[in-house]
Amino acid sequence: MNRYAILLLLAPLIVAVVHARVTANDFIRLPSEKHDSVAVDDDSVGTRWAVLLAGSNGYWNYRHQADVCHAYQILKKGGIKDENIVVFMYDDIANNEENPRPGVIINSPDGDDVYHGVPKDYTGEDVTVDNFFAVLLGNKSAVKGGSGKVVNSGPNDHIFVYYTDHGGPGVLGMPTNPYMYANDLIEVLKKKHASGTYKSLVFYLEACESGSIFEGLLPEGLNIYATTASGPNENSWGTYCPGDYPSPPAEYDTCLGDLYSVAWMEDCDVHNLRTETIREQYHLVKERTSNGNAYYGSHVMQYGDLQLSKDEVYMYLGTNPANDNFTFVDSSNSLRSSPSKAVNQRDADLLHFWHKYRKAPEGSARKMESGKQFAEAMAHRMHIDSSIKLVGKVLFGLQKSDEVLNALRPAGQPLVDDWDCLKTFVRSFETHCGSLSQYGMKHMRSIGNLCNAGITTQQMLEASSQACPTFPSNSWSSLNNGFSS
Amino acid sequence: MNRYAILLLLAPLIVAVVHARVTANDFIRLPSEKHDSVAVDDDSVGTRWAVLLAGSNGYWNYRHQADVCHAYQILKKGGIKDENIVVFMYDDIANNEENPRPGVIINSPDGDDVYHGVPKDYTGEDVTVDNFFAVLLGNKSAVKGGSGKVVNSGPNDHIFVYYTDHGGPGVLGMPTNPYMYANDLIEVLKKKHASGTYKSLVFYLEACESGSIFEGLLPEGLNIYATTASGPNENSWGTYCPGDYPSPPAEYDTCLGDLYSVAWMEDCDVHNLRTETIREQYHLVKERTSNGNAYYGSHVMQYGDLQLSKDEVYMYLGTNPANDNFTFVDSSNSLRSSPSKAVNQRDADLLHFWHKYRKAPEGSARKMESGKQFAEAMAHRMHIDSSIKLVGKVLFGLQKSDEVLNALRPAGQPLVDDWDCLKTFVRSFETHCGSLSQYGMKHMRSIGNLCNAGITTQQMLEASSQACPTFPSNSWSSLNNGFSS
Repeated sequence: MNRYAILLLLAPLIVAVVHARVTANDFIRLPSEKHDSVAVDDDSVGTRWAVLLAGSNGYWNYRHQADVCHAYQILKKGGIKDENIVVFMYDDIANNEENPRPGVIINSPDGDDVYHGVPKDYTGEDVTVDNFFAVLLGNKSAVKGGSGKVVNSGPNDHIFVYYTDHGGPGVLGMPTNPYMYANDLIEVLKKKHASGTYKSLVFYLEACESGSIFEGLLPEGLNIYATTASGPNENSWGTYCPGDYPSPPAEYDTCLGDLYSVAWMEDCDVHNLRTETIREQYHLVKERTSNGNAYYGSHVMQYGDLQLSKDEVYMYLGTNPANDNFTFVDSSNSLRSSPSKAVNQRDADLLHFWHKYRKAPEGSARKMESGKQFAEAMAHRMHIDSSIKLVGKVLFGLQKSDEVLNALRPAGQPLVDDWDCLKTFVRSFETHCGSLSQYGMKHMRSIGNLCNAGITTQQMLEASSQACPTFPSNSWSSLNNGFSS
Repeated sequence: MNRYAILLLLAPLIVAVVHARVTANDFIRLPSEKHDSVAVDDDSVGTRWAVLLAGSNGYWNYRHQADVCHAYQILKKGGIKDENIVVFMYDDIANNEENPRPGVIINSPDGDDVYHGVPKDYTGEDVTVDNFFAVLLGNKSAVKGGSGKVVNSGPNDHIFVYYTDHGGPGVLGMPTNPYMYANDLIEVLKKKHASGTYKSLVFYLEACESGSIFEGLLPEGLNIYATTASGPNENSWGTYCPGDYPSPPAEYDTCLGDLYSVAWMEDCDVHNLRTETIREQYHLVKERTSNGNAYYGSHVMQYGDLQLSKDEVYMYLGTNPANDNFTFVDSSNSLRSSPSKAVNQRDADLLHFWHKYRKAPEGSARKMESGKQFAEAMAHRMHIDSSIKLVGKVLFGLQKSDEVLNALRPAGQPLVDDWDCLKTFVRSFETHCGSLSQYGMKHMRSIGNLCNAGITTQQMLEASSQACPTFPSNSWSSLNNGFSS
C-alpha cells in the first residue's frame, strides 16, 4: 500500500475527526447545551487570548487600572494561561504614595486585592498605541520594550480585548502620547482579520463617547463583536466614588471602578460562564450601566457581528470552576442595586483633588498641593474650552460657530471622513493652545467638524494662533506633553 | 392738701410698686420658678431687643442669611416685636437666580420658609460695621442708610445679638469692607455697658475661630454672656450641605445652615423657653456642635459673665406659645442625630461651585461659569496662602518663618496686643497681594504674629511688595475690593 492509498483509507477518519471537532466547537457555543462541570480542554475550542489595556495613569485614575487587574483575575480564574493574556497598565497605582493600602488594588468597596499576580507585560512608557497594535497583530518585532508577549493566535482562536480609560469622539486616551484614533484601531482589526489569525474577537470598551470608536466604522464580516460603555455622544461613568453610595472605604479619595466595567466583571464573578451568553451579559450590563436611565448612567451599545453574541462568555473568558453551580438564570441574581450616583469620567480627577483638598489638614503642604492640582486642572479646562470656542468664532463668526462646533452627524456615520485632517488639526490646536489632555478629548467632535466643514490646515493654524496668542507655559504645554495625535 | 402732701402719702405705694416689679423680675429669672403658660407682659422684664447679622453675601453663603431669617422667626414667634428686632442681611439670596425656590429661604432640608416677614432694616451695602455698631449703641444719627432702626434700649432691657458668617482670628467678615475687628467690637460693648442702657446682653456668635473674638478680650462685669461656635483656633462648620446626610433637597447646591446655629435654633424651635436656661441650651448646643468630637465639628465656648447663663432663654428670645407643653427635660428630646459630615465654613463656597459645575450640562455657559468660579476661588487661595508664607520667609528666613507665622498665644491672651498694627499690616499686605477676602481671614493670626514679633510697618510693606511683585489684576485685587481693615 503506498502512501496515497493510506491517505485514501484514512481520509474518512480525518474528515470524521475534523467534523467532530467543528461540531463540538459549534455545539459548545449553543446556549441550549447542557454542560457538565468538568473543565473542558481549552484546545477543543482553540486558544483563548486576551489583551487588557488601562489607558490612563495618575492616582485620580485609579479605577482604570483597578478594572484591568480585576479583568485579569477573572481570566485567570477562568483558566486562561498567563502566556495568553497581555496586560497594558501604567502600574503607578499599587505603590502610589496616595494608595492607602500599599501593594493592593481593589475594584469595589468590599473587594479583594486584584493586583496580585497581574503580568506586567507593558507598563509605564511602554503603554503605547504602537505596542498595543503590534501585540494585537502578533507582530513581535514591532514591539518596543515590555515583555514582548504578543497575541500569537491561530485561525481557531478566540480573542478578547478589553480597554478602559478616558476617551472622546473618535479617540481613546493613553498614558502616553499620541492617543489611539478610531480609524487606526479599525485598520488594525481589519489587518488582524485579513491575517486569518482568529476565529472570533470580542471587544469590551469603556470610555466616554466610546460608541464613536465603532459607529459607522466597524464593518460586519470581520467576526468581531464589540460592546461599548456609552453611545457615540455621551459620557461613561466612574463608580464607587467618594460621596456616592456605595462609596469606597473612607481612606480612598478616588473612584474604584467604572460603571460599565464593574457591571460586566461583577456579572462574571458570580456566574458559570458556560451557561451565560455574551448577549445575555450585554443585556444585564446595559441595564446596570443605564442606572435606571438616571442622569448618572450611559447607554451600552453593540457593534459588528452581532450573531457572535450567541457565544457563551466562556468561549472568551473561560469560567471559574468555583462558580459551576451558579448558572445563569435571569437578571435577578446578577444585577446589584444601582449606585446612588456615579461620576462623569471627566470629573473624576477633580473629585479626587477635591476630596484630597477637603481632607488635608489646614496649612499643610498637602492642602496646598491638592489645591494647586485642582486649580490647575480647572484652569486648564477653562482654557481649552474657551480656546476651542474662540477658534470656532474666528473661523465661522459669532452666529454660526456653535452650530458648526456642536453638529452631530447622523447615526451610522463616522465622526469625520478625513482622519488625517483631524489629527493635523489637533496638532495645530495643540501647537498654539497646549495639550488637549484627557479632558480636552471631548472636543474631538468640534475639531472633526472643522474638517468636515472644509477648513484648511492653514486656516486652522491661524485661528489657533489667534485664539491662543501666548503659548501656555504650564504643565499642559505641548512642549512638555507632546501631541495627542 | 398741697401737692407735696399728696406725694408724701403716695410715696410708700410708689416704693411698693417699684419693689414688686424688681422682685418679679428677679424671680422670673430664677430657673426654679414654675411658670404658668399664660403669656407674661414683656414689660415686666424690661424690653427684649435683638440684633441679627448675617455677615456674608453670595449664593454660596446661603446658610448665613438662612440662619438669620430663622432666628428672626424664633424671636417673632417668641413674642418680640419687629420694632425691637434689627436685622442686617445682604438680602441677595431669596431672589437669587440660583435659588430653586424663588422668594423662599429654608434653614433645614424639610424646613419651612423662614424669609417671609423678615424686616429689611439694613440690606446690601448698608450692612456695614459702622451701622452695626451705631445700631447696637442706639446712635441713630450715626446710621447711614437702612431703616434707621436702632437698639433704643433702657437700663432694664435685655439684648440678644446673633452674628453668623465667616471669620478668622480676631476678625468677623462682613459683606462690605472693612471687616469687624474684635477689639472694636469689644470697645462698642464696653461703651454700651457704660451708657447703662441694658440689664444683660447675650451674644451668640458663629464664625471660624470665633472664640478669638472674646478670648482675653471680653471682661467680666459688663453683664454680657457670649457663646461662640468654635474655639479661638478652629473652624466652624456649615451643615445640611450637598453630599452630607442629611442633605438639602436635590435642587440645592449649597449648604442650608451652620452647625452651631441650627443647633441653638432647632433647640429653640421645640421648647418652652421659659423652662430652659441659657446654660442648658449651651450644653445641648455644645454637644451637638462637637458632632461626637468628630473631625466635622467644633468646640462651643462661653465667655464673659457666666452667671447670666442661669437666665431662661425666654428672657432674651421670648417663647412660642405653641411650645408651652414642650418643657425642657434633658438632651434626649432635643438633640437631633449628628450629621454624617459637615463642611468647613471656608470650603462651602468651593462646595457650591463644585456641585454647580458637576451638575451643569456639558458645554453650557453654566458649566463654564462655575468652572471659572471654582478655578478663580482656588487660585486666589493658593495665591494668598503662598504670599503669606513668602512674606514670613522674607521677614524671618526659611528656618524661623513657620514658627513665627503659626505661633499660638496662651489661652486667655488676645490674638494681638496692638490692633492698629494688625490693621495696618493687613492693608500693607492687601496693597501688594490683593484682598485677603473671606478665605484669607484665616491668616489674621499670622499677620498678628508679625505685629507681636515687632516687625515694623516699613518692613511689612517691603516684604509684601517682594512677595507679590505683580499686582493681582483679577476680582480679588484690593483696587476692586477695597481693604478688609
